[in-house]
Amino acid sequence: MVAGPWMRGLGLLVLSVLMIPLSVRPQNQRPLYLMPVPSSVQIGSGQLLVDASFSVGFTGYTEPRLDRAAQRFLRQLSRQTGIPLLLKPGAAAKASLVIHTDHASKEIQELGEDESYTLEVSATGAKLSAPNPLGVLHGLQTFLQLVDVSPGGFAAPAVTINDKPRFPWRGLMIDSARHFTPLDVIKRNIDGLEAVKMNVFHWHLSDNQGFRVESKKFPKLQEMGSDGLYYTQDEVRDLIAYARDRGIRVVPEFDVPGHSTAWFVGYPELASAPGPYEIERKWGVFDPAFDPANEKAYKFLDQLIEEMAKLFPDHFFHVGGDEVNGKQWDANPKIQEFIKAHDLKNNQGLQAYFNKRLEPLVAKHGKSMVGWDEVLDPTLPKDIVIQSWRGPDALAAAAKQGFRGILSNGYYLDLGWPAARHYAVDPLSGAAANLSPDEKVRILGGESCMWSEYANAENIDSRIWPRNAAIAERLWSPHEVIDPASMYTRMEVISDRLEWLGLTHKTYYHQMLQRIAGPSTPEEFAALETLANVVEPVKDYTREETATVEPTSATPLNRVVDAVPLESAAARHFGELVDKFIAASCHDPANEARLRAQFIAWRDNDAILGLLAQRSSLVKEVSATSQDLSTLGAVGLAALDYMTKGQRAPDDWKAQQLSVLLQIQKPKGQLLLMPAPAVQKLVEAASTGGTCASTN
Amino acid sequence: MVAGPWMRGLGLLVLSVLMIPLSVRPQNQRPLYLMPVPSSVQIGSGQLLVDASFSVGFTGYTEPRLDRAAQRFLRQLSRQTGIPLLLKPGAAAKASLVIHTDHASKEIQELGEDESYTLEVSATGAKLSAPNPLGVLHGLQTFLQLVDVSPGGFAAPAVTINDKPRFPWRGLMIDSARHFTPLDVIKRNIDGLEAVKMNVFHWHLSDNQGFRVESKKFPKLQEMGSDGLYYTQDEVRDLIAYARDRGIRVVPEFDVPGHSTAWFVGYPELASAPGPYEIERKWGVFDPAFDPANEKAYKFLDQLIEEMAKLFPDHFFHVGGDEVNGKQWDANPKIQEFIKAHDLKNNQGLQAYFNKRLEPLVAKHGKSMVGWDEVLDPTLPKDIVIQSWRGPDALAAAAKQGFRGILSNGYYLDLGWPAARHYAVDPLSGAAANLSPDEKVRILGGESCMWSEYANAENIDSRIWPRNAAIAERLWSPHEVIDPASMYTRMEVISDRLEWLGLTHKTYYHQMLQRIAGPSTPEEFAALETLANVVEPVKDYTREETATVEPTSATPLNRVVDAVPLESAAARHFGELVDKFIAASCHDPANEARLRAQFIAWRDNDAILGLLAQRSSLVKEVSATSQDLSTLGAVGLAALDYMTKGQRAPDDWKAQQLSVLLQIQKPKGQLLLMPAPAVQKLVEAASTGGTCASTN
Repeated sequence: MVAGPWMRGLGLLVLSVLMIPLSVRPQNQRPLYLMPVPSSVQIGSGQLLVDASFSVGFTGYTEPRLDRAAQRFLRQLSRQTGIPLLLKPGAAAKASLVIHTDHASKEIQELGEDESYTLEVSATGAKLSAPNPLGVLHGLQTFLQLVDVSPGGFAAPAVTINDKPRFPWRGLMIDSARHFTPLDVIKRNIDGLEAVKMNVFHWHLSDNQGFRVESKKFPKLQEMGSDGLYYTQDEVRDLIAYARDRGIRVVPEFDVPGHSTAWFVGYPELASAPGPYEIERKWGVFDPAFDPANEKAYKFLDQLIEEMAKLFPDHFFHVGGDEVNGKQWDANPKIQEFIKAHDLKNNQGLQAYFNKRLEPLVAKHGKSMVGWDEVLDPTLPKDIVIQSWRGPDALAAAAKQGFRGILSNGYYLDLGWPAARHYAVDPLSGAAANLSPDEKVRILGGESCMWSEYANAENIDSRIWPRNAAIAERLWSPHEVIDPASMYTRMEVISDRLEWLGLTHKTYYHQMLQRIAGPSTPEEFAALETLANVVEPVKDYTREETATVEPTSATPLNRVVDAVPLESAAARHFGELVDKFIAASCHDPANEARLRAQFIAWRDNDAILGLLAQRSSLVKEVSATSQDLSTLGAVGLAALDYMTKGQRAPDDWKAQQLSVLLQIQKPKGQLLLMPAPAVQKLVEAASTGGTCASTN
Repeated sequence: MVAGPWMRGLGLLVLSVLMIPLSVRPQNQRPLYLMPVPSSVQIGSGQLLVDASFSVGFTGYTEPRLDRAAQRFLRQLSRQTGIPLLLKPGAAAKASLVIHTDHASKEIQELGEDESYTLEVSATGAKLSAPNPLGVLHGLQTFLQLVDVSPGGFAAPAVTINDKPRFPWRGLMIDSARHFTPLDVIKRNIDGLEAVKMNVFHWHLSDNQGFRVESKKFPKLQEMGSDGLYYTQDEVRDLIAYARDRGIRVVPEFDVPGHSTAWFVGYPELASAPGPYEIERKWGVFDPAFDPANEKAYKFLDQLIEEMAKLFPDHFFHVGGDEVNGKQWDANPKIQEFIKAHDLKNNQGLQAYFNKRLEPLVAKHGKSMVGWDEVLDPTLPKDIVIQSWRGPDALAAAAKQGFRGILSNGYYLDLGWPAARHYAVDPLSGAAANLSPDEKVRILGGESCMWSEYANAENIDSRIWPRNAAIAERLWSPHEVIDPASMYTRMEVISDRLEWLGLTHKTYYHQMLQRIAGPSTPEEFAALETLANVVEPVKDYTREETATVEPTSATPLNRVVDAVPLESAAARHFGELVDKFIAASCHDPANEARLRAQFIAWRDNDAILGLLAQRSSLVKEVSATSQDLSTLGAVGLAALDYMTKGQRAPDDWKAQQLSVLLQIQKPKGQLLLMPAPAVQKLVEAASTGGTCASTN
């Protein structure tokens, strides 16, 4: 699972190839934009042209899935290059890309199957070899990432890649309960997972706000618990086949005993308090929970799990188990009586009891149970898997007790962290770093999580991508691959490519801004973009805390805070520019000019955006932030003037600016103005004085 | 059909409301961005808010198509506003928008059905009334165009609209033969047609390069004549139902006796020369043609028309009939013998004979025959319809002979004309203007044509939209509505809205540029955009003439010439700015600053784009144009300097610049640099001297 000793040799080569900036690279050697970084990359010489004659052929083991993969590969290559490409008949061994597969993979994809592959590209052809189709799928994605326009047309550079994943469980969870995720949105995200070599789609299918799968045994689950927004069993089967074609397992989650209001709308008798119940419209942790003292609840779950275990072929079955607040249990004398009678001590004991009753129901249908941290109980069979939202220490503790685990703490995409912060989270860090080799093997990998309080079909792609690619790399690539600058360079390229797959994280941003602006001149729209490009939504759970009206599932997600990416690339680039400018012993006039132009644009932006604010309530909402951006531009200009004139800025000026910047850094309209800290650096640099300005 | 006398009163109001620029409009009165302009618009006071409580109800006649229309309307309104909207149960008469329909429309939509509607919006509610569902469909689109973000949220202004089309035949033809058009691409274009109130989709289904419909009687047509790229009969039925739901008729075209190579691949015995035949891969006019002397050809066509007449329910059936070059006929002694024997004089007579044999086959299956100009023969029944690619005079001549006609000359979208040029073409202009009222009624309307030599699934939307909206307006709106400035203002707004329907004319542009650039810095990509935004492909049929390698259906459409819109909005805006700057008696410093910034950006652009050109063959291809743009920037700056300094530019300077501009205006890489003429105006203005510069 972990990178072999050969990494010590090739690791440096890998990193150096990926990190050489464009400008210093020899003209004929293009940089590689591979993500995740493969285990080993050796650069050859020359390149393989991709033109209309490009062909694919199979040797060794074949199956229909591989043919479909080749067709999809050619379609994608066609999109990337604009060159019409069709599967051509002909001698397989003479194809431009020869794919050799040793044998089949498991009928139902399993955890820990061999996913390795070898890809050799030379000027005369390419060969992809893998033990089974899973490796082929990964290798095809690597090939696609190698192809780009070159001085001689579209081509892949000559290269030899040996690759395999570091962790066997690399997933994305999508919460389709809080906001329903239409099937086509799921599918394009599955395409995205394939592109970055993730292999698990964890489908959060039920919660207080909705039960999203058709049950034929208990049809009131979806009929009364979903507003009509649910997946039919046919759709589920279709999605599973779609994912399997892409080397991705589908793990369903039915969250019990809490997070289950939607179940009780149709079946109130299962709850710990009498109904009636309604679908929950708000966000948060709510009281309704299954009644662990009610034998009927287990009978119901047994039958439902039987039905769903058949529908979802994966070996793992997620039962949730998180965040039971216990209020219904506390308030129900029969349940309290039950706790006493069974010597369960408290609600935690009651939940452990519930899980111990639940686990055999899951096992009976041939599955291993997965649950969030709370399900962990030393008396449960070691077969279960703990998904940790609490943290790596909890995960390490579980591993020590013999349980397998996957990390999600640190990978919550909805919290709005920068990619680099997710990237720095390693499942084998913290307490896990000190586990024994046997224990480490129990850390199966991780899953990014996309909780959907503020994500719907329109903006969910932009909440997942491109940052999810950084998490995918963390879970696939050798643990030495940690440089955030290299990651960002490659992530930006991959982000563009992901749109070719049908993901809409970039296109929808533009369209949502158009809606916010309404009919507008190009200048007005550009002003909105200028502001939107450098703001981010407030982080973690602050959005709930700062809401002026309590948000519900009916709240429109049409504001600037819903449109802007969760990480501002423009602000990051600006921060890098400021760092470079300050660090240079003599200020670079080109960088100075760039900074000056940026500050002037910001300073003058609000005058234009103000016109739009008069016409659009959604623009007006960000007026304060727009004014802050103008101020930021003015502060930046003043700092720049001191620095370029070689004057040390006076202390009282500095104090005044820092106080202004303090105000600017407070969130307004649930938005953060991201370049503020970099401008603060400039103010501080201006106040220490320069050494080189006199030569200016 | 033509606008009533009330237009004389309200027409001015309509135009004035639509043309008041944003800046001088009272704050509470938003401009209307309606396209096509309705027959009559009266502005009221206040506005109808659109929020989550918005509802739709029906009174009068109803049918399932209306329910689907309401659902689609709410979905679209939801997309436009970002507000979740669902069909709500409740009293229809109390809905926010009450839709009243008098009676059903025809089971199979007919030419000339009443398409009128009345839409009244007040602060408390809206009412849409129409004689039949066709008017309802149009009225819903008008309502959607009224809704925009306002200072008080999303809203439609209070307004009373009475509307009906000027012409009953308002169509778009798509050539799905030369490049196959996937069904989803057709569908999104049908959505576009609905949005601009066009009511005919003319489907060019066969040509030398492909036979695109499944025939069960003659399966070798699609099996051997389509490379597998054809529509099944189920897909055709699905598309027809889709179009009917949107008030759009589907007229199929099977082009005979020429343009028919693809037929002969499977059925060479129908041709005028022995086979074998292959699918044509090139563009142009080719020799293969049906053999009019062969009775078997008529028998074949009779059976095929029978099959297709059942598949396509529309009353009209298009048989093509254009561009027979006669070479196969000349070379075939039996055919020449036939001409003599039947006293047909020449090939034209032979084609008339063919048409006279064909028409009864079409009529027998209950259809009226449509054909291009060439089918016109005075002895044919007056029931047929002439589609004129030759021009309005040909159309007027046909009308004088008693034939009905539709205009396509002037509406060829693939020729790359600016929208304003299409917009100026009126079916009742030229010789048609002098027709008698009875003859004028025979001019049914018009059709824009999208021939697909250089359009595939990726870029076809950008070749059709937004310019097709201008043609749609010409065919719907009162003939007094002719101001191109107003048209452009509205077209740009509508263009953004069309993307919400799923059309990709703007998003794909960006993605195609990314492919052309390859991995690049934001500055490099911006430089490519700066150039691409001001170039257009060469016009009319020049692309064929200037090709260095003969283009075929396998030629990748991935170059800058394939990516850029056929009309540059940026160049048009620049031209307007130059005109305004020159026309002002004293130069406006704000406009001067805008021009200067633009010229500097152009001048400096090539230095950045040059870096990309070293890496991308597709960028390198436009290097000469990029250098021209830099030169253009420098020339513009120099002219501006003369003007703002109040100096008259010397004659030799002027002569030199004009000679430079002459070079720049020559197409390079099949691209035109569009701002060159405006810069020339500036050079000429600088050389006449200013009157006001001394106050500067």
